[in-house]
Amino acid sequence: MNFAARIDKAITQAVTRGQAQPSPARLASALHYTVHPGGARIRPTILMSVAAACGDRTPALTDAAAAALELIHCASLVHDDLPCFDDADTRRGKPTVHRAFGEPLAVLTGDSLIIMAFDVLARSADHDPLQAARLIRILSDRTGMPNGICAGQGWESEEEVDLRAYHRAKTGALFMAATQMGALASGEEAEPWEELGARIGEAFQVADDLRDALYDEGTLGKPVGQDDLHGRPNAVTEFGVDGAIAHMREILTGAIASIPKCPGEAMLAKLVRAQAEVLTPIKWRAQQQMTPGE
Amino acid sequence: MNFAARIDKAITQAVTRGQAQPSPARLASALHYTVHPGGARIRPTILMSVAAACGDRTPALTDAAAAALELIHCASLVHDDLPCFDDADTRRGKPTVHRAFGEPLAVLTGDSLIIMAFDVLARSADHDPLQAARLIRILSDRTGMPNGICAGQGWESEEEVDLRAYHRAKTGALFMAATQMGALASGEEAEPWEELGARIGEAFQVADDLRDALYDEGTLGKPVGQDDLHGRPNAVTEFGVDGAIAHMREILTGAIASIPKCPGEAMLAKLVRAQAEVLTPIKWRAQQQMTPGE
Repeated sequence: MNFAARIDKAITQAVTRGQAQPSPARLASALHYTVHPGGARIRPTILMSVAAACGDRTPALTDAAAAALELIHCASLVHDDLPCFDDADTRRGKPTVHRAFGEPLAVLTGDSLIIMAFDVLARSADHDPLQAARLIRILSDRTGMPNGICAGQGWESEEEVDLRAYHRAKTGALFMAATQMGALASGEEAEPWEELGARIGEAFQVADDLRDALYDEGTLGKPVGQDDLHGRPNAVTEFGVDGAIAHMREILTGAIASIPKCPGEAMLAKLVRAQAEVLTPIKWRAQQQMTPGE
Repeated sequence: MNFAARIDKAITQAVTRGQAQPSPARLASALHYTVHPGGARIRPTILMSVAAACGDRTPALTDAAAAALELIHCASLVHDDLPCFDDADTRRGKPTVHRAFGEPLAVLTGDSLIIMAFDVLARSADHDPLQAARLIRILSDRTGMPNGICAGQGWESEEEVDLRAYHRAKTGALFMAATQMGALASGEEAEPWEELGARIGEAFQVADDLRDALYDEGTLGKPVGQDDLHGRPNAVTEFGVDGAIAHMREILTGAIASIPKCPGEAMLAKLVRAQAEVLTPIKWRAQQQMTPGE
């Protein structure tokens, strides 16, 4: 089974358990609505790639970790879209959860998916209870306070922002979770894999800034110009478009250099290199192809 | 150390970890504001009582379980108070979190406390990884979908409500978690302890209905008449005040009968009997004392 199929199967199993009867039907529907169809599933894909590079010694743990990570990511999108944050009408090309189901069910959907993520990992304790506990601790660290995506969102309510801490928590945290959980699920130490996740996270932050500055809502499937609107720092404002693209490629070169020794090192480097292309806005990608000597 | 001191210490340790620097200062404050000063800490007290009745064989697990349960309870109060649910201005005699810190930080406070609860339990894996995983599974089951307090709140967005499932999830779930986690933390099976938790939960539901119908906001520290306002089912509407009190005492008699054989059985029975008195509204308590033959 390829990564996408494994991720989808593990998420579907968890959501189906969450919809068991008797349960409130609309909240049950909202769970499914939130996670299907998914976006690029980039975080669990990175997690599985790292696990595979390390030998994927306990596939059941890898599957659980990938599902848990994506469930947390989906939960964070639902809460970030709420009227009190981004007040977004669309996400992944369809109405946001609070637009489709109302605000109460959007809050509860996010809560339920967070809880489901930890449940999925706790169930994997049947395969290896100590590794399951370690996976839970990484996921909680990268999700809650003081280091996780909740902290990242929390920085946006501060007058004085620690920019490094903000970006690490807001965008970096779940990428660091991805590489570290992938390694852990394969029986490797988590620590050496932090830098790869951190750098991929930085690159995605720049790519997100580029998309936010360049694309229209129809292409993106969610509102654009949000950073400008909310006065958030943005790499395009700082470096310009060409500068931001160059910066992103530099970060990914650093990411490749940081990959720890493992059987799948070359495969991982190739994957990161491919991301550099995917993350470059289309028009600029084409420019690069037209001027191959550049 | 008595139960209250152990609970407070475990919660304070967890919140202090969540406030480590660098982190967004206002969200860090909101975490503390939400859990201190606490309410009656009734759920973790029940958990510790059951653990003690079973011998409290691994106090570190008991402390972690009690803190995790109370963190989840506090998180649920913050989210339930949000404008899209109860829109409450006060809680425990002070402004609700969203009134004091704004809605974005109230959402994030709830999220962070949920995550912190699972983190606390995962850390207790150092003492016994398999038991820690079991504790996490009970807590997630009693908190999320389809059986937990999220499901309970979700039923309030349905046109057709399964009343039994609604009450079990909304009020019963965390009491069942309390008795089952207390037993598990002491190395006992969780299953035989479900009924005690369920019955205590039912009694608290009736007591809550009584308080909601009888008390004013100053006495209660939170808005009253919420059930009437939101059209929710209520035992006082169904049985009248005297009937509801009699019903509550009957439920607690059943609770005592359900206590599994254990060294502290008599102590637990006494504790439940004392609750019957505490849960009876003051005026009716006095009436009972004046007519001792009744």
